[in-house]
Amino acid sequence: MKNTFGHSVSLTLFGESHGPAVGGVIDGLAPGIPVDGEAIRRLLDRRRPSAPWDTPRREADDFRILSGVFQGKTTGTPLCIVLANQDQHSGDYEKNRGLARPSHGDYAGFCKYHGYEDYRGGGHFSGRVTAALTALGAVLLTALAGTGVALGTHILRCGGVEDRDFDCLEQDIACLNRAAFPVLTESRGEAMIAAILAAKEAGDSIGGVVQTAVTGLPAGLGEPWFDSVEGLLSHALFSIGGVKAVSFGDGFQLAELRGSQANDAMRMEKGRVITVTNRNGGINGGVSNGMPILFQCAVKPTPSIGREQQTVNFLTGENAVLRIAGRHDPAIVRRICPVIDAVTALVLCDLLAQRYGTDVFTKGRPVCDMD
Amino acid sequence: MKNTFGHSVSLTLFGESHGPAVGGVIDGLAPGIPVDGEAIRRLLDRRRPSAPWDTPRREADDFRILSGVFQGKTTGTPLCIVLANQDQHSGDYEKNRGLARPSHGDYAGFCKYHGYEDYRGGGHFSGRVTAALTALGAVLLTALAGTGVALGTHILRCGGVEDRDFDCLEQDIACLNRAAFPVLTESRGEAMIAAILAAKEAGDSIGGVVQTAVTGLPAGLGEPWFDSVEGLLSHALFSIGGVKAVSFGDGFQLAELRGSQANDAMRMEKGRVITVTNRNGGINGGVSNGMPILFQCAVKPTPSIGREQQTVNFLTGENAVLRIAGRHDPAIVRRICPVIDAVTALVLCDLLAQRYGTDVFTKGRPVCDMD
Amino acid sequence: MKNTFGHSVSLTLFGESHGPAVGGVIDGLAPGIPVDGEAIRRLLDRRRPSAPWDTPRREADDFRILSGVFQGKTTGTPLCIVLANQDQHSGDYEKNRGLARPSHGDYAGFCKYHGYEDYRGGGHFSGRVTAALTALGAVLLTALAGTGVALGTHILRCGGVEDRDFDCLEQDIACLNRAAFPVLTESRGEAMIAAILAAKEAGDSIGGVVQTAVTGLPAGLGEPWFDSVEGLLSHALFSIGGVKAVSFGDGFQLAELRGSQANDAMRMEKGRVITVTNRNGGINGGVSNGMPILFQCAVKPTPSIGREQQTVNFLTGENAVLRIAGRHDPAIVRRICPVIDAVTALVLCDLLAQRYGTDVFTKGRPVCDMD
Amino acid sequence: MKNTFGHSVSLTLFGESHGPAVGGVIDGLAPGIPVDGEAIRRLLDRRRPSAPWDTPRREADDFRILSGVFQGKTTGTPLCIVLANQDQHSGDYEKNRGLARPSHGDYAGFCKYHGYEDYRGGGHFSGRVTAALTALGAVLLTALAGTGVALGTHILRCGGVEDRDFDCLEQDIACLNRAAFPVLTESRGEAMIAAILAAKEAGDSIGGVVQTAVTGLPAGLGEPWFDSVEGLLSHALFSIGGVKAVSFGDGFQLAELRGSQANDAMRMEKGRVITVTNRNGGINGGVSNGMPILFQCAVKPTPSIGREQQTVNFLTGENAVLRIAGRHDPAIVRRICPVIDAVTALVLCDLLAQRYGTDVFTKGRPVCDMD
Repeated sequence: MKNTFGHSVSLTLFGESHGPAVGGVIDGLAPGIPVDGEAIRRLLDRRRPSAPWDTPRREADDFRILSGVFQGKTTGTPLCIVLANQDQHSGDYEKNRGLARPSHGDYAGFCKYHGYEDYRGGGHFSGRVTAALTALGAVLLTALAGTGVALGTHILRCGGVEDRDFDCLEQDIACLNRAAFPVLTESRGEAMIAAILAAKEAGDSIGGVVQTAVTGLPAGLGEPWFDSVEGLLSHALFSIGGVKAVSFGDGFQLAELRGSQANDAMRMEKGRVITVTNRNGGINGGVSNGMPILFQCAVKPTPSIGREQQTVNFLTGENAVLRIAGRHDPAIVRRICPVIDAVTALVLCDLLAQRYGTDVFTKGRPVCDMD
Repeated sequence: MKNTFGHSVSLTLFGESHGPAVGGVIDGLAPGIPVDGEAIRRLLDRRRPSAPWDTPRREADDFRILSGVFQGKTTGTPLCIVLANQDQHSGDYEKNRGLARPSHGDYAGFCKYHGYEDYRGGGHFSGRVTAALTALGAVLLTALAGTGVALGTHILRCGGVEDRDFDCLEQDIACLNRAAFPVLTESRGEAMIAAILAAKEAGDSIGGVVQTAVTGLPAGLGEPWFDSVEGLLSHALFSIGGVKAVSFGDGFQLAELRGSQANDAMRMEKGRVITVTNRNGGINGGVSNGMPILFQCAVKPTPSIGREQQTVNFLTGENAVLRIAGRHDPAIVRRICPVIDAVTALVLCDLLAQRYGTDVFTKGRPVCDMD
Repeated sequence: MKNTFGHSVSLTLFGESHGPAVGGVIDGLAPGIPVDGEAIRRLLDRRRPSAPWDTPRREADDFRILSGVFQGKTTGTPLCIVLANQDQHSGDYEKNRGLARPSHGDYAGFCKYHGYEDYRGGGHFSGRVTAALTALGAVLLTALAGTGVALGTHILRCGGVEDRDFDCLEQDIACLNRAAFPVLTESRGEAMIAAILAAKEAGDSIGGVVQTAVTGLPAGLGEPWFDSVEGLLSHALFSIGGVKAVSFGDGFQLAELRGSQANDAMRMEKGRVITVTNRNGGINGGVSNGMPILFQCAVKPTPSIGREQQTVNFLTGENAVLRIAGRHDPAIVRRICPVIDAVTALVLCDLLAQRYGTDVFTKGRPVCDMD
Repeated sequence: MKNTFGHSVSLTLFGESHGPAVGGVIDGLAPGIPVDGEAIRRLLDRRRPSAPWDTPRREADDFRILSGVFQGKTTGTPLCIVLANQDQHSGDYEKNRGLARPSHGDYAGFCKYHGYEDYRGGGHFSGRVTAALTALGAVLLTALAGTGVALGTHILRCGGVEDRDFDCLEQDIACLNRAAFPVLTESRGEAMIAAILAAKEAGDSIGGVVQTAVTGLPAGLGEPWFDSVEGLLSHALFSIGGVKAVSFGDGFQLAELRGSQANDAMRMEKGRVITVTNRNGGINGGVSNGMPILFQCAVKPTPSIGREQQTVNFLTGENAVLRIAGRHDPAIVRRICPVIDAVTALVLCDLLAQRYGTDVFTKGRPVCDMD
């Protein structure tokens, strides 16, 4: 169950960049959840290459629901979505066979798959697979919304430009889910875009840091050992190509503080327990504490760049020089946001279903003790 | 299987801080691995509170192997180790019942367990459970060593002091596994200890960043989606109380670089493919690439501090002021290192057994294609 | 992971009888296994309704491999096969909405899916889903063959007719895998067919007992507790609609014997340990002992019959009378054999990959101690 | 996770017959379930060798709860119970080292564990491990009772004697849970005991068939594929040493009927959907239908007999003759009943928790649609 994630609600991915299709299956989702083609379309559009700086590969991202939906609602049985691959230029890749693109999965994949891997366009390692993840993620986000959970992701840092922090979460999240370029301050977004275009101009690429906020998650989810909220989220987030660090709350900055500064003081507010600050990102001892979940992912610069690079041909065992001519993104920070939302939704749906049962998405969760 | 981690080689934890015992079970480990009581003892000693700044709780950490070992070797059946709890001062905790220690799992645990949790000393959330993890980890580290994999963890940053980076890995790892205070530069260690003592003096606590290196891991382990090496390691690492961020290779710094700077150039060396730099921490596309695995964990300052804190009594629903009188550590960066080694060993044993079969630890792995 | 089975090699199913398609995904299979469209076709043909007594539903069973195969071989990444549904007469089912077909999954499914299930033709409960299982099973059987494991299933009893027992296993298995009607004695097969036609004539259906033999499986697979060979096989076999009992070796007959009769005496033969009889079906203590694996499945008569039946309308809560007009099989004993082979192959591939690593199918397993 | 079973509620076993202890861990059970030492004691007593025909090994079966219970109730964290081994005569076994007891796990275990297994008394294969399973099962049965589910097992056939079938289930179950010898007709029990004593007298052993009934299980549990109620129950039941067949409802007899005879007609009764007969054992399409769950297990005669047997010495590779002098049971049909109850409780607790959430055992399940 290597390409499957989740216990009660799970997701399986399949597909190669230049094979017939990419797709995935969600299992364990309650029956009766509305499946809105438009919502899937919108989330796919946020992931789709479309900006001037994106890869020139243009996929229609036409998705097809093969199972698990009947009369516009989930049936509760496995829900499979498939997206056919269309705009493939396999020839671009053939001629570089054996030349490892540095910091790509090419060589590691060769060691794993003994040369049988579909090497065109990264094969199963390709970001193309996230189209399937995103389509399924849209269904999971609808399910989550039914329980009162909302989430959104913005580009916190890119190209030396920093977006403002989350403030009024509900509003910020709503805003991000409509944004063409997911930042909280439009002018910072423009500066980031300029930085991306400059990198592209230089035949280079840039990375960034994205930050996610989740509201409405009840306290008491997650386990003290192993299946902590942090552990499950990070496990899923590190699946996304390019993510090299995941931090919760104030993350690495917490390591520089004293306990008296890092601890989140608590108080009662309108009969509910809250923390005054949220430096721990809504999770204590691995378990949600009822405050918003906050985390950041560091996204490395796209490894496909136009510049000449020192590498090897792993088929011949010789040193080589590589200049990638194919189509590639100078930055994926924009396109990664809906993918992060999708895997976050997967983890949270699974946690909710484990805790409150599989009907939680349609019948709501039982009234909590403390409410 | 919430307190269980791993597929082929798995580990289950149990126990509460002030219950009769903590313990754990390893399943799936090959038969014939030598189980050396002294090796277990040594790793436990590295985790045990013993320094002047550690919690004054003094546990003998006498462990008992209940199953899975016969005539000094693993039998291949579940291996259970139990450590009785001894030095418990339950009274310290009783009187604070309902008072949430800020940034501890108390309140989140109450929401999860509805008040039935063993609240003494953090119960199942307690760092005491890591004694069991460490004892089992010693067995896993022996198993790993049989396949040529070695690993070590040092305190990279603490109290504003920075240790040097890893250099000659084999030597550094060997050195760390003998060190009383796990740093690569003794003088930096002394400065960190001074910072810890200063925090203690101030009734406060400090955190830090620890860094781990793994050598000898073959290329081709891990999966492109979900069960990436990063995903599995982070999942396990975030179980450890206090870890709030996990980064691989250059982590967050990668997000600030351009692709031409972040990519690890490759070349042939003595017939093997290597990367010239290792900014990706030995993992590409989620799969090991044969270079050393490098990662860092941010450890927040211990939330138990002697200072007065604003909090709530979640039983009465009232605001409250808390001053913790019990025994606690001003810093866990030293004691966390063997625990990180233990969970890392768990993840790597599992990956190796999945790939090469359960006998990999005693019969070695098949000769690799590229060798 | 409810519709997923297997740890190292796993299989996920999706699809409804009258939805767009049925399909499935195999994960964890080694790279480099030849994928032969003809072999898939042949196994599908053995499952396909084609005999005069089969359901008149005629599906082309055109399968499409969406991922995981490149240049005729498995890539080692998830392998998805999809079969479009074509010959659907949804109208047949619409008019009986709410009328539970006795001993079908209709009412149980309604309780599980709250009425959101695709009720046409049994939806996800439909035997149609086994077409996907069979197509994937053909790939798994090829993988198994690479390790020297062969298997076959025959109808042991049907309509009061009994086939002979397995005798020379290799030959019998080879013969079954070519047979139009899977029996070891042709004349008995003809008598069974006559019984099936008689039941059809009477608007009724019949069941039967099928028996499976596996050769070439090494000793030492399976676990003493929970993941015993019997436990895993039965778990998978009971997924197949109509299977109501699974027995290993002499099964229920063992319960009538004394130990001195039931025990399989052992002796050395050509340097190998064998048992003189095989009443335990090749499994002792849950672990394979190197002898052929033998098991039987009881298949109940198809619950869809043409006769009038007393039932309920679970939408109105009223008693009702049902006469099913749709297309259905008077017996599935013939068509179930390749499906049993498919799930058996899944379980055995998983056991082999767990024990010997994922490359076992292409590089063979290490030489055994006793050989 | 080979010695672990269950998803939401799971159980891990460890221990060897002649090691320090046997034990197990339940994970995922809700907090607040009363843990009654007396109930554990009573279930252990039903499994304990005590009758004149049982093995003369006399274990006090003193259990110790190491974790997961606080102030008499489950905490919701892993619950570990350990039973020390006491009455061991290791010498009995040493001298037969290498001599495979026919139809025992000795030789299969040797192939699996390469000779590192603890060979004394069957090691981890020993029925002694079921003492741990039974102790944990008592906790699970209490949890189940909180949801209105009851279950019981009787010896249906043994030594040519047949008990009556279940009739008034609630009463029969209550009666079985108090019985010294679990039959529904006392006189039949006496005849069975006579048969057991006769086998013992002859230095031989006998098997039998046991039947289990479950009442109060809601409709809609289980999955159409793979995690069917039948699949999960059989998976767990086949773990128990000696079980060689599992059948649901009328099992193998269904294979002899026509559909019109085998189908369970349905009707409304007091506003509920029921089936008039229950030949399918309360499960359709793998999903519970609200009727009692009924199943049977075939238990082979104990393989340890006093008579001379032909076997091999697998260490020397020579034929050998074995006469077992150690202590053993001429029949385990009595002692197996509480073990079957324990694993049945495990499966049902897991199914309920997956469906209704982890609090189902203390807060009850939501009102069902059809009620």
